[in-house]
Amino acid sequence: MNQKKSLESLLNQLKDKGISEDKILLELERSFINADPATFIDHHREERCGYQEVIYGLHKSGQRILYAAQEILKIKPSVLISRVDSEKSKLLLKHYPDAFYCPISQVTFIGEFEQKFNSKLLIISAGTSDESVVKEAHYCAKAFGLNTNLIQDLGVAGLHRLLTYREEISQADCIIIAAGMEGALPSVIGGLTTAPIIAIPTSVGYGANMEGVTTMMAMLSSCASGLSVVNIDNGFGAAYAALRMIKTFESK
Amino acid sequence: MNQKKSLESLLNQLKDKGISEDKILLELERSFINADPATFIDHHREERCGYQEVIYGLHKSGQRILYAAQEILKIKPSVLISRVDSEKSKLLLKHYPDAFYCPISQVTFIGEFEQKFNSKLLIISAGTSDESVVKEAHYCAKAFGLNTNLIQDLGVAGLHRLLTYREEISQADCIIIAAGMEGALPSVIGGLTTAPIIAIPTSVGYGANMEGVTTMMAMLSSCASGLSVVNIDNGFGAAYAALRMIKTFESK
Amino acid sequence: MNQKKSLESLLNQLKDKGISEDKILLELERSFINADPATFIDHHREERCGYQEVIYGLHKSGQRILYAAQEILKIKPSVLISRVDSEKSKLLLKHYPDAFYCPISQVTFIGEFEQKFNSKLLIISAGTSDESVVKEAHYCAKAFGLNTNLIQDLGVAGLHRLLTYREEISQADCIIIAAGMEGALPSVIGGLTTAPIIAIPTSVGYGANMEGVTTMMAMLSSCASGLSVVNIDNGFGAAYAALRMIKTFESK
Amino acid sequence: MNQKKSLESLLNQLKDKGISEDKILLELERSFINADPATFIDHHREERCGYQEVIYGLHKSGQRILYAAQEILKIKPSVLISRVDSEKSKLLLKHYPDAFYCPISQVTFIGEFEQKFNSKLLIISAGTSDESVVKEAHYCAKAFGLNTNLIQDLGVAGLHRLLTYREEISQADCIIIAAGMEGALPSVIGGLTTAPIIAIPTSVGYGANMEGVTTMMAMLSSCASGLSVVNIDNGFGAAYAALRMIKTFESK
Amino acid sequence: MNQKKSLESLLNQLKDKGISEDKILLELERSFINADPATFIDHHREERCGYQEVIYGLHKSGQRILYAAQEILKIKPSVLISRVDSEKSKLLLKHYPDAFYCPISQVTFIGEFEQKFNSKLLIISAGTSDESVVKEAHYCAKAFGLNTNLIQDLGVAGLHRLLTYREEISQADCIIIAAGMEGALPSVIGGLTTAPIIAIPTSVGYGANMEGVTTMMAMLSSCASGLSVVNIDNGFGAAYAALRMIKTFESK
Amino acid sequence: MNQKKSLESLLNQLKDKGISEDKILLELERSFINADPATFIDHHREERCGYQEVIYGLHKSGQRILYAAQEILKIKPSVLISRVDSEKSKLLLKHYPDAFYCPISQVTFIGEFEQKFNSKLLIISAGTSDESVVKEAHYCAKAFGLNTNLIQDLGVAGLHRLLTYREEISQADCIIIAAGMEGALPSVIGGLTTAPIIAIPTSVGYGANMEGVTTMMAMLSSCASGLSVVNIDNGFGAAYAALRMIKTFESK
Amino acid sequence: MNQKKSLESLLNQLKDKGISEDKILLELERSFINADPATFIDHHREERCGYQEVIYGLHKSGQRILYAAQEILKIKPSVLISRVDSEKSKLLLKHYPDAFYCPISQVTFIGEFEQKFNSKLLIISAGTSDESVVKEAHYCAKAFGLNTNLIQDLGVAGLHRLLTYREEISQADCIIIAAGMEGALPSVIGGLTTAPIIAIPTSVGYGANMEGVTTMMAMLSSCASGLSVVNIDNGFGAAYAALRMIKTFESK
Amino acid sequence: MNQKKSLESLLNQLKDKGISEDKILLELERSFINADPATFIDHHREERCGYQEVIYGLHKSGQRILYAAQEILKIKPSVLISRVDSEKSKLLLKHYPDAFYCPISQVTFIGEFEQKFNSKLLIISAGTSDESVVKEAHYCAKAFGLNTNLIQDLGVAGLHRLLTYREEISQADCIIIAAGMEGALPSVIGGLTTAPIIAIPTSVGYGANMEGVTTMMAMLSSCASGLSVVNIDNGFGAAYAALRMIKTFESK
Repeated sequence: MNQKKSLESLLNQLKDKGISEDKILLELERSFINADPATFIDHHREERCGYQEVIYGLHKSGQRILYAAQEILKIKPSVLISRVDSEKSKLLLKHYPDAFYCPISQVTFIGEFEQKFNSKLLIISAGTSDESVVKEAHYCAKAFGLNTNLIQDLGVAGLHRLLTYREEISQADCIIIAAGMEGALPSVIGGLTTAPIIAIPTSVGYGANMEGVTTMMAMLSSCASGLSVVNIDNGFGAAYAALRMIKTFESK
Repeated sequence: MNQKKSLESLLNQLKDKGISEDKILLELERSFINADPATFIDHHREERCGYQEVIYGLHKSGQRILYAAQEILKIKPSVLISRVDSEKSKLLLKHYPDAFYCPISQVTFIGEFEQKFNSKLLIISAGTSDESVVKEAHYCAKAFGLNTNLIQDLGVAGLHRLLTYREEISQADCIIIAAGMEGALPSVIGGLTTAPIIAIPTSVGYGANMEGVTTMMAMLSSCASGLSVVNIDNGFGAAYAALRMIKTFESK
Repeated sequence: MNQKKSLESLLNQLKDKGISEDKILLELERSFINADPATFIDHHREERCGYQEVIYGLHKSGQRILYAAQEILKIKPSVLISRVDSEKSKLLLKHYPDAFYCPISQVTFIGEFEQKFNSKLLIISAGTSDESVVKEAHYCAKAFGLNTNLIQDLGVAGLHRLLTYREEISQADCIIIAAGMEGALPSVIGGLTTAPIIAIPTSVGYGANMEGVTTMMAMLSSCASGLSVVNIDNGFGAAYAALRMIKTFESK
Repeated sequence: MNQKKSLESLLNQLKDKGISEDKILLELERSFINADPATFIDHHREERCGYQEVIYGLHKSGQRILYAAQEILKIKPSVLISRVDSEKSKLLLKHYPDAFYCPISQVTFIGEFEQKFNSKLLIISAGTSDESVVKEAHYCAKAFGLNTNLIQDLGVAGLHRLLTYREEISQADCIIIAAGMEGALPSVIGGLTTAPIIAIPTSVGYGANMEGVTTMMAMLSSCASGLSVVNIDNGFGAAYAALRMIKTFESK
Repeated sequence: MNQKKSLESLLNQLKDKGISEDKILLELERSFINADPATFIDHHREERCGYQEVIYGLHKSGQRILYAAQEILKIKPSVLISRVDSEKSKLLLKHYPDAFYCPISQVTFIGEFEQKFNSKLLIISAGTSDESVVKEAHYCAKAFGLNTNLIQDLGVAGLHRLLTYREEISQADCIIIAAGMEGALPSVIGGLTTAPIIAIPTSVGYGANMEGVTTMMAMLSSCASGLSVVNIDNGFGAAYAALRMIKTFESK
Repeated sequence: MNQKKSLESLLNQLKDKGISEDKILLELERSFINADPATFIDHHREERCGYQEVIYGLHKSGQRILYAAQEILKIKPSVLISRVDSEKSKLLLKHYPDAFYCPISQVTFIGEFEQKFNSKLLIISAGTSDESVVKEAHYCAKAFGLNTNLIQDLGVAGLHRLLTYREEISQADCIIIAAGMEGALPSVIGGLTTAPIIAIPTSVGYGANMEGVTTMMAMLSSCASGLSVVNIDNGFGAAYAALRMIKTFESK
Repeated sequence: MNQKKSLESLLNQLKDKGISEDKILLELERSFINADPATFIDHHREERCGYQEVIYGLHKSGQRILYAAQEILKIKPSVLISRVDSEKSKLLLKHYPDAFYCPISQVTFIGEFEQKFNSKLLIISAGTSDESVVKEAHYCAKAFGLNTNLIQDLGVAGLHRLLTYREEISQADCIIIAAGMEGALPSVIGGLTTAPIIAIPTSVGYGANMEGVTTMMAMLSSCASGLSVVNIDNGFGAAYAALRMIKTFESK
Repeated sequence: MNQKKSLESLLNQLKDKGISEDKILLELERSFINADPATFIDHHREERCGYQEVIYGLHKSGQRILYAAQEILKIKPSVLISRVDSEKSKLLLKHYPDAFYCPISQVTFIGEFEQKFNSKLLIISAGTSDESVVKEAHYCAKAFGLNTNLIQDLGVAGLHRLLTYREEISQADCIIIAAGMEGALPSVIGGLTTAPIIAIPTSVGYGANMEGVTTMMAMLSSCASGLSVVNIDNGFGAAYAALRMIKTFESK
């Protein structure tokens, strides 16, 4: 609210100088486009929800992402930013040349990855086309301090390959599975393990796949019991669901 | 057309007797409801499409089904009728007490089942709830003269059970697979065999399953190559697709 | 497979007596409708997936449910059956008069409820109309041996009431939240706690609610991080997801 | 109609000179693309519907917007234009360098903002990504002469922040609320105030959000009583709904 | 919460007597089906949201509706109940023989209708088939104390009739318009008046109407500015939106 | 309006006698359910739209249909009523025993069919299951005075039969074609004739047919030029479209 | 087929020279991309369907459009091409500098417009944004030889303007009406005239408009009797439907 | 797995040199974008599923496609790559200048086409706009070694042309049919032949066509018996389905 108050006093000063309110408003809007949208950083989120505020980069300009990152870094030692395209990443990497940036998953992390939890998180993809999604889950999980491991390309049409990973699957404490098309992989793995499973439908496919909606609906209709599902391509959300689970149970 | 012509002459006779056309029409409509809808039996379908005309019982009254069956039986030694509910079956079984009737799949067959083809057709269901659909496929296939075998309840969430049937799967010349929910079974089996696979989505499931639409869309998006799909719960259509294939290749 | 083998030998005996295969088939189908669909009880599911086979009663006749329950009870001390309507429950309660049956959620449990896990599972509903769904989750969780607690009617349009339960929410190790209509409750609670949250969309609502599809889509689009979602009205699935989580982490 | 008449006489003159009608038609069509589409300015709309004609810029070329604005300004002291992208705005700002233009919401206003009504309109967004929509509502409301105030970023997953604005909410005479994703904010605020609430679903989100359709359907299914909803991203429409309400009741 | 506490002490007493917890639970569930679902009456809703708690009868048994009505009547002089089918109404009318019950709209009101506001609310339907919806709006508005007037059957395909009501339309302070099929009536009236308009899509129509979804989408896409829309068939919600508006502005 | 006025004076008389307004309202509503909903008969529709008012029976009670029919018959020699189920038809036929009633299409016509136009209308169905729809079109067309002829069961999978009707098709002045499933018949016939074609999608089919929506969308996507489409199962609407065309061109 | 035969002989000659079939195939495919796709011109379409073959330019390259136009012009004096974007039009206009090209509707016509029919076709749009669609209908109608007249911008929210055109509407023999958003204009005009009405839904709108699908569904659900509908934005199809009607009735 | 092992040892070496794990990870990700995604070539697929691994080029970079092709060519004499746009094809053609590349269907084949099977596969398209899809099917079939023949532009609105190909149709052992819009061609051909039919819906059309979804749903609802359907535009899948069939039956 302080920010708003100071804006108002500034406004009054300008009006005293005979500048019309409309003109001021106009100038403000014109300058806002490259500046800060009065984002309110939620510095208590970690205590409430398990992890500090994360910046979702998709609908924000590079300038705004940078500003928000700088605000968070005033208080926290690191900051996680999702969905930063290569164009926007340039601005961030210019200011933070040591930042981690994965161009496939568009995850950016400014700070040092540090493992804080021991439970084994296993992340599996059905095909190489799901790579951007599982890497988003994987690097977000790393940023959260989770002990994460990634296996790609275990589609159900190649059972032989899937079955060679039975041991890794049975030892995991939590499994994130990303699949596109018919989204069958979580059902198959759900029949092989007791561990909690978080399914991510991906938008890989075409036609009847309906940009991932078919996959999502199929996963929600799974014949395997006790799977739960996050939004299409939501690698970040799946990793966060794993964080909620692991943080809660490790801190008991 | 003869039928129509005779109706017209009848009409003229009545009009000559001073009965108004409206009255005749009214009487005709009132009597039609329990009678024959002037169905035109297509007696040359077998030569053209591989099997004689089949009666689809869903939208027809018992009376109309009976009439159509009688017409076909004047020329053919047997007749296949699909989707005959237990109420309508009573009328048929009263006239044809030796008829085969499966109350689960609602398939009725008047005549003797006779195997005409040698190729192995294997029909598989993912769960016991798909029973009505695979039995429709199975008994229609039997009526077509196919060499058919049925295995139920091989869901992907129980891989161990599925894998015990690997030999049956690898020996089949054509496989029909019915599954509901996420519809994953065809994808898994598609990775285990070279045989042609016809997938039937079933309306088993609820909520996100969308009465089988999700299953159908998922099967069409399958990651396994070369599957083809028929309409929801269409056991008859899948068996007919198998018939087309087997009849064509065995007659070469 | 033994079952099938014995059927075949029986078949051969009958054929030897001059009874045609068609006749036998016909009789078999006619008797099957009230009998056992050759359900294969999966007695190793507990080791693989965390809990013994559960009977899903929706598409099964009372006779078939009873048969499956009897098969399971030969080996296990208890059996859980979901979606048993009041008509079907009569047959079960006649055979097992001490069985637990909740007519609202249609959960049936034959055996003694026994708490096996200590982690606190909290189940919350947004409105009284969600009662059948949260009670399905609650009694399935009890059957699984979970330490479950149920709070109903905490809708987001009555924030004051919701906030009086802040302590129960913050102490839970896992939270299942059922809501219909706009499905906002998981988002609000997701902002108040670190615990894992499993959201159940319910089919409560009309018109734009699209029988729960809108609710499900809304929950998957939630602005709160790390929620995961199960199918519409799937109280059983949510409880199973909680079981996977709690069993895995308590057994570490 | 005069316009049409003069065109016809022009046409006749040209035909008299031996130029074929087709040629003329061709030339006319070719020149029309950069010119005026014979827009009929509705100069009596203010009396009928509460506000003078507004130009909807989305499907119009810059030339056509300019022409329509000039026509309106012949009679009215100001003109409001919505959905003017930055490219089209250049032409307008060249002709009207003092015009107000907000590049985020694409609202253009030529004239002086003047407050004509006293009732308090409060505009709230759930997240920073809804900025373009609430700013469209805000600046359209200003153009309508409404007494409008804007608060951004009050998402339901951060209840603590929302509750700090309880006083502003309880003092408003009309509230416009824009939210994307699950669209829960109007339900929560609907439980805190008697004031009329106009909900705007925004297309913020991805996957299950279905470009705002899920949000819209969720808002229409809200558990809070008496909310009403406008089209996706329709900031202009929400402001107009507020204008109808405030103008009607203030003029009583 | 007292209710829950007393239940717990009762539980303990029973357990002391050697009755197992399972048995008690079973008995409780069996008795609950005809009893009170521990509904929490929200006695402060009037101050917060403009009107006391209303009972939504659709998913509740007659017993539960009666119980909730009795609880509210302990404190308030009247109670409004929506969606009470004729079967459930019998129980209510047996206890409250003077209650108002409209069998078409299924609105029940126990108490005296009393006009508390002067602003003119006009409710219009497009066709006679929308009668149940506009009567729900009308009688709910009466229960809220609004000054409401109802005109039926003003469809857009009969402009002549619509235009004879121009005066009533121009004098209204708030207009609720219900229409099915293409939902065009609000657009036409929106061009004739400055008053706020609340549009109710009705589920009247078939085929392409999609049970009212097409109508709802069409109304949200209206070419008339400043309309707002409620859920399909939601007469209650439209009346409540009018109440919010009228109560807020009359109390200024 | 007279009706309303007289109601008001009646109301005042009753109030003068000390009967409360609520009581009167209650009695009115209770009696309305079996009575007239103040339907306004549009006696000038024939001049405006080409045919007198038709009663759509689907959402109306038998009593209301009878009342409306009686009102129309005060002025017109006949009345057409669509969608009268067999239950409602009994009441009508008791009052008008000579009325025409087709139980398949549910068309009722009180009066004498009289041919007023000479142009040849041909109505074609793709299958016997479309019978109710084409008969609705056929008998409505007869009621309109059109010269109509009906041919059933010309599906595209039986080209040979379709081609035997080439002459009838080429001589028709207007063709109505009803088809379900993939809705291909209009496309095929559209390639054989210059005549105007009105396509009716029917709800015949299941699964992917989506209750006729697929058929409707397919017809709108037809590769044949110049087809136009009416709502699903809308035999009445198709006949009316033919009437508009034939009446306009014959009266030139 | 000659074309194919000559290709085969060419192929053989090349093979004789030792060039491998693969190489030839490769070269053929590479050259095909800019050449003729062996389009088969249907020179008898006019006799069969009422108008000679029209070229649909959307999915064709400029080269292919030009080739097809040249083929048709060998036999016919003119050719109509729809959906030619400005880029493709350049190639056509280079070869046929006198061709008519309307850049808004993308209609191209090579030849002289010539009126062949007298019936009055009236084409109406609801808003200026529907211009491209009504101009496609208008210029296609001109190419077909119809007597066509175009009135734009008669939206239902401005009834006053619509009613000034009552005379034009009542004198038309056939009316094409294009509208976007809620698509109400055909319903309103349908109540004012007996003439046949062909409704074109346009993709004008956003959000709930669903790119014209809502408009199309709304038009198909119209409360006015006897409207028929063509595909979204299908100006060509509507004009063709008018041609079928007018040609058939004028040639009687 | 060897690949992973060697990566780990490399990682350890780097760590021994004091380079932090984060730095290494960062470098790896940055280099991965242009390199190999650890694709696991499935060299046993031919034995299992009938054909060696095919590269699906759509979501892969040119670099990754090249790498995968090179890996396969180490063991196999040829490699098939689908969906290679012209940009990506340049890299492939630079390395393999003799490769077959069809720019319309985007099929790339490195190696010699060699016919291995005799059964006649006939591929038919409904219109010239389906060319890319049928050519994908055709060239994939050639790569599989099938005896394939292609006929284009046999739409149902031109029956005369379709019927001239009756002999080719009746002699085929398997028919692939691609159609857009209403997708009627498979139904018509299904009535003319006994051969198995694989239908491919194409995304040709607009508006109600819903990018091929309407076509797909229409084909699945076909009135012709025994058709089966693959995903929208899936020429590769249809050819693979033919391969499964032909390979299985020829190898008997």
